[in-house]
Amino acid sequence: MIFSDFINIRTEGKNEIIDITGEVRSILKNSGVSAGNILVFVPGATGAITTIEFEPGLVNDFPELMERLIPENSTYLHNETWHDGNGHSHLRASLIGPSITIPVIETELVLGTWQQIIFLEFDNKPHHRRIVVQVSGE
Amino acid sequence: MIFSDFINIRTEGKNEIIDITGEVRSILKNSGVSAGNILVFVPGATGAITTIEFEPGLVNDFPELMERLIPENSTYLHNETWHDGNGHSHLRASLIGPSITIPVIETELVLGTWQQIIFLEFDNKPHHRRIVVQVSGE
Amino acid sequence: MIFSDFINIRTEGKNEIIDITGEVRSILKNSGVSAGNILVFVPGATGAITTIEFEPGLVNDFPELMERLIPENSTYLHNETWHDGNGHSHLRASLIGPSITIPVIETELVLGTWQQIIFLEFDNKPHHRRIVVQVSGE
Repeated sequence: MIFSDFINIRTEGKNEIIDITGEVRSILKNSGVSAGNILVFVPGATGAITTIEFEPGLVNDFPELMERLIPENSTYLHNETWHDGNGHSHLRASLIGPSITIPVIETELVLGTWQQIIFLEFDNKPHHRRIVVQVSGE
Repeated sequence: MIFSDFINIRTEGKNEIIDITGEVRSILKNSGVSAGNILVFVPGATGAITTIEFEPGLVNDFPELMERLIPENSTYLHNETWHDGNGHSHLRASLIGPSITIPVIETELVLGTWQQIIFLEFDNKPHHRRIVVQVSGE
Repeated sequence: MIFSDFINIRTEGKNEIIDITGEVRSILKNSGVSAGNILVFVPGATGAITTIEFEPGLVNDFPELMERLIPENSTYLHNETWHDGNGHSHLRASLIGPSITIPVIETELVLGTWQQIIFLEFDNKPHHRRIVVQVSGE
């Protein structure tokens, strides 16, 4: 059985990290699936999905890490092509990746207690993000 | 229903980034699956799969990023073991990861307009790559 | 068909890299699935899963890479919140990611010859890790 739904988010393009665990759990409940997995996927080349302990310290540390590894104000050929100044956004998104898959056992998402599913807005302009949540199982 | 097929690619080992979106779409069509997901996986420890906006700027920026984070000419114990000089290739592959899963809804891959699926050749020698594309669904 | 099992590991919190390929293969065999995929997922925010050529050189090089990209002794707001000194562990785990999915074709895991599935312990204290291995297919 396949059940697909969406999470709609408006972002400002300011390195937001958004905890979507509650919405994913709610879609799982609606699906009626008790054993299987959930795929969370962001269409688009400047956003990403991963997990983190969603607390204010790390919500600050993670964007700082991204800025250190892939600085916004560096030289990227992408920016010379499009002049939208978001070369760093694309590279961060490709590094982290657009999706994650989480097991479902006995109707529950198998996550650690301090592990939340997050959407990362890497772009430098506002977006309407429509994240796909797809439950597969029985 | 499970439908498996392969994409065969010859690489030269020169940091190629290859857009495989068309081949993946074609395999999806052959599968007849209308709802489910597609797993794209590269067997081997020196290649990787992710998504990117496939345009000439980023196709240059991404290998440059890899070279900055994990330089080819640095000291890796792997090279002292095997003397094939590809320690950096292995580390890049483990960092990015060998696979991606993409949702399928109403017979279509759910990708962003500017988001392509890419194979990354990180090794420093030619390869015949046989990428697995597996469609699961109904 | 969905078949779920677990791999139980005790770690010391000393940057262990543990090859779990044998256990994953054994669970696949028990499942009886001949075509489909295997999801390997670590619950918890300070561990990760990826693939690597599991040989002593890289088993040393990969933690060194992590230390270079995300040093243990740097300033993280997470540490000021919790004072457990594992901000770097969380960031490394979010960067690499908690899961991997591997295709199964004709009863076999489709891995490269030199490609093993590894669990990465990034935390700085001992853990009892319970890794989820879920086989989906027919």
